[in-house]
Amino acid sequence: MNYPSKLIEDAVNEIAKLPGIGKKSALRLALHLLKSEKTQTHNLSNSLINLVEKTTYCVACHNISDAEICQICGSHRRDSSILAVVQDSKDVLAIENTSQFQGKYHVLGGIISPIQGIGPQDLNIESLLLRIQSNPEIKEIILALSPTMEGDTTAFYIRKKLKDLSVKISTIARGIPIGGDLEYTDEITLGRSILSRVEF
Amino acid sequence: MNYPSKLIEDAVNEIAKLPGIGKKSALRLALHLLKSEKTQTHNLSNSLINLVEKTTYCVACHNISDAEICQICGSHRRDSSILAVVQDSKDVLAIENTSQFQGKYHVLGGIISPIQGIGPQDLNIESLLLRIQSNPEIKEIILALSPTMEGDTTAFYIRKKLKDLSVKISTIARGIPIGGDLEYTDEITLGRSILSRVEF
Repeated sequence: MNYPSKLIEDAVNEIAKLPGIGKKSALRLALHLLKSEKTQTHNLSNSLINLVEKTTYCVACHNISDAEICQICGSHRRDSSILAVVQDSKDVLAIENTSQFQGKYHVLGGIISPIQGIGPQDLNIESLLLRIQSNPEIKEIILALSPTMEGDTTAFYIRKKLKDLSVKISTIARGIPIGGDLEYTDEITLGRSILSRVEF
Repeated sequence: MNYPSKLIEDAVNEIAKLPGIGKKSALRLALHLLKSEKTQTHNLSNSLINLVEKTTYCVACHNISDAEICQICGSHRRDSSILAVVQDSKDVLAIENTSQFQGKYHVLGGIISPIQGIGPQDLNIESLLLRIQSNPEIKEIILALSPTMEGDTTAFYIRKKLKDLSVKISTIARGIPIGGDLEYTDEITLGRSILSRVEF
């Protein structure tokens, strides 16, 4: 595409580096910002710089945080006896939005994936062990990882590492999603949900 | 949604002000930037600031430009006798990408829309008249406006304004799009395309 201005071209190229945004959408966004108040672009720009420069991670759970200890870890209303182990901050948000979990979190910062070259040493697994050892009030670990090959590998690895510690280990239930249709459920999920049937 | 950090919340709110991006997509983009190299965010941020602060408009055609006179108006290889009148810079890009037009442009900067409170005085129509009057080499004006109510209103207004000047006024052809199917074409387009039939 021939852009009328080098500045537009630069902006389009930078915006199009974001996931899910192509050149056409990037151009639309750039022209939108050009037509809008300049303060909008300045606010956007400042918020992004502040985001990447000032965001820190909670020293206890490794979740994104504004302070050394995040709101959840610092709250006295949360149950310290139960930890949900999740892949990243998005999962913390997803679980928080259910309002069904009152415990605390431990963010791994990724998942074991030999294909992407991510091993256990790249994740916050060592700090999970230390956290459990130094906090005897922790009684249960919920492995809230995605039901994929990588998620299962990571879960098995963590279970092996924790087996000598006196904590209960559980995993989130897998089965037919609420509102799902038996007919259209894949056979692996349906098979597992029969094997893992629960008393009614 | 409860964000783990005020900085994330600010960034999500600013990103979600862009057209077509909701809170969920904004969060995904913010977390993507957090995981990426910081230089990416700095480059993005700088390119947006440069875009809104340094972009100028061509004094002749009002298209976005890096200089006082844009590349198209300044080019000796373009035909100065024919001007395409378009709504905004996006349309210049769209026509340029067809490689079918060798003339120059005139960007109105909008379209007459009483509902949005945009009248002829808000558009670059007066400068179009001046441009035609002071450039006797301009022989033809193509009204390349969208075939909507507002586009037609604007086209009629410009035609009325130009009727005393000795320029030919044409409009881009309307009809069945190439590859379109007669059966699924709306009746207004099909009806107009029969009335405006051309010799084969």
